[in-house]
Amino acid sequence: MSQASKHVYGFGRGTAEGSKEMRALLGGKGANLAEMSSIGLPVPPGFTVTTEACRYYSAHKGQWPTGLEDEIRSGLTQIEKTLGRRFGDPARPLLVSVRSGGAQSMPGMMDTVLNLGLNGEVVEGLAREAGNERFAYDAYRRFIDMFSAVVMDIDHHHFEEALASMKAKKGVKNDLDLDANDLKLLVDQFKAIYEHHAGHAFLSDPYLQLQHAINAVFESWDSARAIKYRQINRITGLIGTAVNVQAMVYGNLGPTSGTGVCFTRNPSTGERELYGEFLVNAQGEDVVAGIRTPEPIAEMESHFPRPYRELLEVTERLERHYRNMQDIEFTVQDGELFILQTRNGKRTGKAALKMAVDMVGEGLTDTVSAVGELVEPGHLDQLLHPGFKDETAYKASVIASGLPASPGAAVGQVVFAADDAEKWRDDGKKVLLVRIETSPEDVGGMDAAEGILTSRGGMTSHAAVVARGWGKPCVAGCGAVAIDYASKSFTTGSVTVSEGDWLSINGSTGEVILGAQELVEAQLVDDFATFMEWADDIRPIGVRSNADTPADAAKAVSFGAEGIGLCRTEHMFFEGDRIQAVREMILSSTEDARRAALAKLLPYQKEDFRGIFRAMDGLPITVRLLDPPLHEFLPHDADGVAGMADRMGIDEQTVKAKIAELSEFNPMLGHRGCRLGVSYPEITEMQTRAILEAAVELKAEGVIVLPEIMVPLIGTLEEYVDQKQVIEKTAASVFAEAGSEVEFLIGTMIEVPRAALTADDIAREADFFSFGTNDLTQMCFGYSRDDAGKFLPLYVERKILPHDPFQVLDRRGVGQLVKIGTQRGKESNPHLKVGICGEHGGEPTSVAFCYDIGMDYVSCSPFRVPIARLAAAQAHLAARRNGM
Amino acid sequence: MSQASKHVYGFGRGTAEGSKEMRALLGGKGANLAEMSSIGLPVPPGFTVTTEACRYYSAHKGQWPTGLEDEIRSGLTQIEKTLGRRFGDPARPLLVSVRSGGAQSMPGMMDTVLNLGLNGEVVEGLAREAGNERFAYDAYRRFIDMFSAVVMDIDHHHFEEALASMKAKKGVKNDLDLDANDLKLLVDQFKAIYEHHAGHAFLSDPYLQLQHAINAVFESWDSARAIKYRQINRITGLIGTAVNVQAMVYGNLGPTSGTGVCFTRNPSTGERELYGEFLVNAQGEDVVAGIRTPEPIAEMESHFPRPYRELLEVTERLERHYRNMQDIEFTVQDGELFILQTRNGKRTGKAALKMAVDMVGEGLTDTVSAVGELVEPGHLDQLLHPGFKDETAYKASVIASGLPASPGAAVGQVVFAADDAEKWRDDGKKVLLVRIETSPEDVGGMDAAEGILTSRGGMTSHAAVVARGWGKPCVAGCGAVAIDYASKSFTTGSVTVSEGDWLSINGSTGEVILGAQELVEAQLVDDFATFMEWADDIRPIGVRSNADTPADAAKAVSFGAEGIGLCRTEHMFFEGDRIQAVREMILSSTEDARRAALAKLLPYQKEDFRGIFRAMDGLPITVRLLDPPLHEFLPHDADGVAGMADRMGIDEQTVKAKIAELSEFNPMLGHRGCRLGVSYPEITEMQTRAILEAAVELKAEGVIVLPEIMVPLIGTLEEYVDQKQVIEKTAASVFAEAGSEVEFLIGTMIEVPRAALTADDIAREADFFSFGTNDLTQMCFGYSRDDAGKFLPLYVERKILPHDPFQVLDRRGVGQLVKIGTQRGKESNPHLKVGICGEHGGEPTSVAFCYDIGMDYVSCSPFRVPIARLAAAQAHLAARRNGM
Repeated sequence: MSQASKHVYGFGRGTAEGSKEMRALLGGKGANLAEMSSIGLPVPPGFTVTTEACRYYSAHKGQWPTGLEDEIRSGLTQIEKTLGRRFGDPARPLLVSVRSGGAQSMPGMMDTVLNLGLNGEVVEGLAREAGNERFAYDAYRRFIDMFSAVVMDIDHHHFEEALASMKAKKGVKNDLDLDANDLKLLVDQFKAIYEHHAGHAFLSDPYLQLQHAINAVFESWDSARAIKYRQINRITGLIGTAVNVQAMVYGNLGPTSGTGVCFTRNPSTGERELYGEFLVNAQGEDVVAGIRTPEPIAEMESHFPRPYRELLEVTERLERHYRNMQDIEFTVQDGELFILQTRNGKRTGKAALKMAVDMVGEGLTDTVSAVGELVEPGHLDQLLHPGFKDETAYKASVIASGLPASPGAAVGQVVFAADDAEKWRDDGKKVLLVRIETSPEDVGGMDAAEGILTSRGGMTSHAAVVARGWGKPCVAGCGAVAIDYASKSFTTGSVTVSEGDWLSINGSTGEVILGAQELVEAQLVDDFATFMEWADDIRPIGVRSNADTPADAAKAVSFGAEGIGLCRTEHMFFEGDRIQAVREMILSSTEDARRAALAKLLPYQKEDFRGIFRAMDGLPITVRLLDPPLHEFLPHDADGVAGMADRMGIDEQTVKAKIAELSEFNPMLGHRGCRLGVSYPEITEMQTRAILEAAVELKAEGVIVLPEIMVPLIGTLEEYVDQKQVIEKTAASVFAEAGSEVEFLIGTMIEVPRAALTADDIAREADFFSFGTNDLTQMCFGYSRDDAGKFLPLYVERKILPHDPFQVLDRRGVGQLVKIGTQRGKESNPHLKVGICGEHGGEPTSVAFCYDIGMDYVSCSPFRVPIARLAAAQAHLAARRNGM
Repeated sequence: MSQASKHVYGFGRGTAEGSKEMRALLGGKGANLAEMSSIGLPVPPGFTVTTEACRYYSAHKGQWPTGLEDEIRSGLTQIEKTLGRRFGDPARPLLVSVRSGGAQSMPGMMDTVLNLGLNGEVVEGLAREAGNERFAYDAYRRFIDMFSAVVMDIDHHHFEEALASMKAKKGVKNDLDLDANDLKLLVDQFKAIYEHHAGHAFLSDPYLQLQHAINAVFESWDSARAIKYRQINRITGLIGTAVNVQAMVYGNLGPTSGTGVCFTRNPSTGERELYGEFLVNAQGEDVVAGIRTPEPIAEMESHFPRPYRELLEVTERLERHYRNMQDIEFTVQDGELFILQTRNGKRTGKAALKMAVDMVGEGLTDTVSAVGELVEPGHLDQLLHPGFKDETAYKASVIASGLPASPGAAVGQVVFAADDAEKWRDDGKKVLLVRIETSPEDVGGMDAAEGILTSRGGMTSHAAVVARGWGKPCVAGCGAVAIDYASKSFTTGSVTVSEGDWLSINGSTGEVILGAQELVEAQLVDDFATFMEWADDIRPIGVRSNADTPADAAKAVSFGAEGIGLCRTEHMFFEGDRIQAVREMILSSTEDARRAALAKLLPYQKEDFRGIFRAMDGLPITVRLLDPPLHEFLPHDADGVAGMADRMGIDEQTVKAKIAELSEFNPMLGHRGCRLGVSYPEITEMQTRAILEAAVELKAEGVIVLPEIMVPLIGTLEEYVDQKQVIEKTAASVFAEAGSEVEFLIGTMIEVPRAALTADDIAREADFFSFGTNDLTQMCFGYSRDDAGKFLPLYVERKILPHDPFQVLDRRGVGQLVKIGTQRGKESNPHLKVGICGEHGGEPTSVAFCYDIGMDYVSCSPFRVPIARLAAAQAHLAARRNGM
């Protein structure tokens, strides 16, 4: 193990020995402090002990490498010289903070010790210098508490209890109501607690305090929790944590001191103006705590003219240096400005777009950096959907929380049935549809509603998928809501909401809110188009949309989709009279009877495809053949059975017998997908015929149709070949009859784990793969998306899962299958086109994964298309940065 | 591409240029003909064209390699010399057969052309020589038909139609009723058909016929079907097919000719005696066709004394050479004996064991070869279960066929309810339980029945798994049987079977048979123990059993199990009053209430474990924690709801509400397995406590207990760690309370694809893995085992799947996950113990797979333990042979 000859890197007063490129050696925090210092910012001086030193300590059972002690002492001397103060000197004391700082932050690593360097004499000196005894003893008791907890592992609650009993004794509620004498007493008590648990008196030698604190940081690297975290997150290649020792500065030393925060531009509107607030004679936490009302930043000029001018210069420089809007914390100590932190500032979607376009216009950055760093995919989501006017005001009215299934805000009167939603809408009312769950029979009512709330089902439940497709707000799987259809009401906690009551939902957060909250409409600003063009210029992979109707298809194109990645055909089976023909087919006991029923469906399907093909003129359309099990097309309750029997002129017993025959224990794993097509090839034939007859007809009308026929739920090569042969044979007939041909592709969904594992076989016969990551997630984890609501929230809360895997693609497990499938597929068939059409196709980190493993395109619901376009561009830029 | 200098290898009359080691060059058939010839057997002479020649032909667009033509001509000359006949010579004609023969047989490759060398003149000569014109023309018309179909790809049905109309014209039904003149006419018609389709006259030059036939064999190697077959079966490394050209011999040339088949030992009993039959003046197919009654082989001595003596010598030598009982076909032509084929003879289980033990005793073979080659795992199955006395007689009474879910034969009176089965049994009756499907509530009735028949569910359905565990015959998923509980009857086709009717089932074949068929009991012969000891000496991996009760455990040990690989705990929850406590727990809405209910279960569970641990003294026992979703413990119908409400003193509405709350769309993928343990850690605690308290108590009594606690349905490392911590904490309490400890392991089922894919993570924390290949198959394929009956039979029939993957482990897909899981697991934790406890653990080819990938043990139901022991030994021998 090599031992670097230099273990300590100093910074402060316009110079630094390190830079932001030295993250591996100095950690993220150390590298950033050095960077700020080296570009001339007034950061409090300090030094960083390297990760190499930590590695040495860890490998040599707690020994420091040769020279480290000297370097630390000379680092301290440097700080002392810079500030004209001395460590442990009561006359003009230097206090420091000690913080850990790896190249990557991780739980289990030691946090922060402030005010280190205090003891019985120094605290008196501090009090004298500040002219404030209370301030000094408050700092001292905080230091003892922090040092004990963080360095000596003495439980914090011992100190809290002492503080509480002191307050009780004095009859006060607030820490601030304790005076200097109280705090002196508390310091004595704290020292006693320390001694009791540590077995020795509290350390009064500042240098010994520092040594202990540094060792505690080193040791936290090898804590069980930090090791486990690195294992679980597969963090390798790091050698240890750095330690940052930095001079303390105080904004509460009197009227010539102060503290504040500011943004270099307005984070709400994006306007170019210094925006923020400050407080005279205060600490940073006072600004946040809201006990005193801060003043607008512009008022600072009258209090501290010179520091204010410096601040203007600093903020200007920081924005230019980081080429991004900065969120800056500063302190003025005795008339001297110190910058404590700068980071990229949070902003609204509208502000993000404006700043990005403005900064490019100002020449402050270029379009590539703007796309890569200035706008997050989530910002676009805000712009595309209505929101609540005041996001904080409604919090008191939140009565329950479900899954944020489709973003945006919606307000309406509650109804509990799809039919009612349509009726009320026709009467001119705005309604919210509340259901235990939805089924394809409910689509009319879902369309009529402003938003949808369900008590069961996950992020890929019927309600969620349909709502996202339409860009309609939806909160799904809100288990806290107990719906009673009989009384047309639901209860949650002590609240009961009845039909007609006003309710609001926030589909971006999952909140359910009592009453009619005020809305703001979606705000598609002009900057949007400009910015998305920049993103498209960078993006190397395609973005398509999932769309089942001509209207969806048109919407998708308007959002920039370059094709349809998933056109489901089963939704088409429910509309109007078609369901009659579908049910006739299901009730048929012979192939001839089935063919007769299918012949009735053919013209409808063909007309659907004509509409979609026309909307997508010149763009590819992936059509998935029938996927759900046939029992989904049969009625679910007694009324439905009676109605079906009546309409079809058969007895109820026949309907019930068929329902019983087709019922399944686990429909998700049942007789569906290509298994239907293999059992009843005539269904595959009819759908192929509808697709290709429509294509041939439109071609004659001059429309460019690029159909891709997709076989669902393939698990074996043989299944695929079986269906491919049916499709090819049907195509030959259609083309012969028409005397005209269109080019088309045949491919498959990869959504069964076995298909991913045998992708090399299947790819030899397929033109394309489209990963159906919804089902793949279900089967890889063994989670039913309709049932997992019973334990998934608990799993996420307990960190057994980092995210709901139906929202964010699970790279470690499901991702392995996607990667295996993509790589093996492309190896055995270099012409294979590979995409994704699961819900993950519109989730930014999942899009990045798809790009990284070499997919050709992603496909998502229309309203997510802009997000996917930006995420894909950003993934490309990230890969370029990482030299991939 | 290299071209071997020699393309043709001759054989015959005691010599051969090839040997059985030359399969790659000569194909399997050619190598075997050479072998027989070289050990001095009188095989008809011939030659083999090499696979190298085929490769050359294929690579050079139908050209023969230099020298091949000369070699073929000299091969023919060699045959001519050997037999004193000449190809194309009417005076003493030589006719040959032409057959393909790769190193591996495959569909799509050309089959056989017999009687090649006939033309207008030669047929006359053949008639003269045989003194039988009908014989000669019958041979000729068969040749034209075969040559046309096989070589020229002319559809066989054209010839069949001509034959049929000839028979119609003559008013006869049987081919044999056509006389020589009819056949002459037919030959003319056949030639006309040939000419019509081929575009040229039928080839009269025998050498041209041979050339065409050889080319046709070569070309069949590159047929689409053969290529596809090699792709699908991943057959690589083969370079082509060989061609075998061999002299025809005839047993029907007169009274000095004949034909027969014989076994070197009695295939039914295993007795050492020549066993077989023969016919004078007949062809091989006459023996098989059963038109004439053959004579016992011993009678041959009086007809052909010299050939008979020769046959005795030959059979003796063949058995010694192949070290196995041989099934031999022979022909005597004009007093001369020819051996046409020898192969290892089929035998009954009883005979297989006797021969194996006898042959070792005779010094004919050794124990290793006996285990490796003389007994098949299926043979043991026959011995372990009762069978029908006459396996052929009952065929006429078969009324339906289902899955062979648990082997053996059973006879009883039909009942349709578990309660009835118990009542009738108590009245001294033998019953067969017939159910649509069974559930854990039915186990009493299943136990009372002789056998079980279900109309739904697959090889791993509840009925199948329980029946196999008990060794009780079961036919499952017999969809043809429509059961009506109301009328207590079932119908299949036109047959209706009512309660009380006698019925038989064959669980080894899946047949359902009307009436009470006669049974023979299981026959555990003495040779069994001897033979199994030999197998155990060879077997390098462990064999355990799945067992849930002390009785099952004892049975498993008696069959040679070395531990329990899967002890399910949920069955224990149903017995007697326990279900009450289980339901109390489910109805509890607080943790305290759940704990109170669990406390009632604890003594029962502990007592169960005491019984099992005692039975397995000194052997390891893997106990799986609770697996099924909680709703399985609630009643399924209105009566059950009423009963439960009554017994528990609550209203029916509460019961119904709980059932509704817990119901799931896809229970297989729902809230079960470790997901229960994570949600309700108190269940895991109670079970751990029951296991370890029992273990500590028995240890005090001197019993050696080796418990292994298995967490089911793990999908993520975090889930596993969560449950492991609960188990470890509980163990610490139990041991502290008892003042005594037992060693135990903690591990997990690998049954979720994600667990296999992340096995490296999980293995770091686990002591063992046990692959649950039932669920892994369900999730890898996306097949619900309870529903797949709707399409799996079709899939197997249509060859979309080679087997039911719930019976035979799917190596290509599921096997990949098992392999990945095993390898990654062992790499990250070299001490990891790995086994399998799915139903595949008792299926021979799946056992071989488990051995090949490096598992430590397999576990299966008790009655399959001997099969697994033998299969494991054979897998080891096969690997050794292949140099693995």
